[in-house]
Amino acid sequence: MSKKIITIGRTYGSGGRLIGREVASKLGYAFYDKELIELAAKECGFSPDFIRANEQRATFGFFANLASQGFSYSKDTLPPADMLFVAQCKVIQDVASKEDCVIVGRCADYVLRDLDTCLHVFIRSTQEDAVHRVTTYYGVPKDKAADEIKRLNRQRGAHCKRYTDRTWGAAENYDLTLNTARFGIEGCASLICEAAQRAFNPTTGDGVY
Amino acid sequence: MSKKIITIGRTYGSGGRLIGREVASKLGYAFYDKELIELAAKECGFSPDFIRANEQRATFGFFANLASQGFSYSKDTLPPADMLFVAQCKVIQDVASKEDCVIVGRCADYVLRDLDTCLHVFIRSTQEDAVHRVTTYYGVPKDKAADEIKRLNRQRGAHCKRYTDRTWGAAENYDLTLNTARFGIEGCASLICEAAQRAFNPTTGDGVY
Repeated sequence: MSKKIITIGRTYGSGGRLIGREVASKLGYAFYDKELIELAAKECGFSPDFIRANEQRATFGFFANLASQGFSYSKDTLPPADMLFVAQCKVIQDVASKEDCVIVGRCADYVLRDLDTCLHVFIRSTQEDAVHRVTTYYGVPKDKAADEIKRLNRQRGAHCKRYTDRTWGAAENYDLTLNTARFGIEGCASLICEAAQRAFNPTTGDGVY
Repeated sequence: MSKKIITIGRTYGSGGRLIGREVASKLGYAFYDKELIELAAKECGFSPDFIRANEQRATFGFFANLASQGFSYSKDTLPPADMLFVAQCKVIQDVASKEDCVIVGRCADYVLRDLDTCLHVFIRSTQEDAVHRVTTYYGVPKDKAADEIKRLNRQRGAHCKRYTDRTWGAAENYDLTLNTARFGIEGCASLICEAAQRAFNPTTGDGVY
């Protein structure tokens, strides 16, 4: 039987990671975020530190398709950043085939786009809320917060565009998007659980697949 | 006391209008969709038929700001399509000040963007789901459905861009977006009501405003 998967994309400072962890805890699912780095490291042979430093700095755009179609790759032919992405795709497919889980970031919505038992979520917040979160919890200095938020979001958007040819944060790519500033961490987690309940256990309704 | 407002943007064939009506019915709110046309007709002096034919064919882009800032306008200086938009802005602000309501389309999310007691929702569906809905319920012939969906969505996106300078359907502009194909009409309506309950009656939580 197919596993139930929730992918969560998120803007920087939106609390998406925290929400993902809360959802996994509520539903009793496994949780993958930075854990994927260790697994990808084993897969492609780079050190976890190298991966942390480079995973969203790739500059090529057509490898996601190769990986999601099951094509193999070679250390001799792909640039390191692309090898990394391909390794992450493989790891995402592996964990998604093994257990119910929540996967944060890493274009998992795209990698698992054809899987019917997937709920694709995107979390965003307001600028004010993101500044509050990154200065309070992530240790970003107040005078650097706005620039850091802009830089990271631009990097995530570019990474998504390059590897998936999708527009990051466009509603058309997700089943559900939420504004943390509106519902709070706990509220978003509860709404996602409610949505998962409906998506994974549909009863009736026009248009439910 | 401020009224509670839910704005609903929607792709063509997503069932957003039906969902809006269901939400209004469940919450006991007033419902505005085509009703706004009659009110805008009174406001600007055009016939409702003229408005139906022209409301999303405007070609100017900066009048929304004028209207939402409370600037007045004149029949002698604005092209008809822009007068229409300005009249709709005024009508949206009027109804939002008078009663709890659900407002479908017409850039209401932008017009009421600074109102804290507003929940901004966007509904989309899959292409397959939209084709099913427009051919089954809207009377669109099967061989014309894909083109009609594309045409209407392009028109709505262009209208939004021109009058608000926003990207239609970008998660950053909404508190909640939903995929009808995933949750069904009834499921989407229930999730919106649950979200409204949390947004309008916040208890605790990091980041709730």
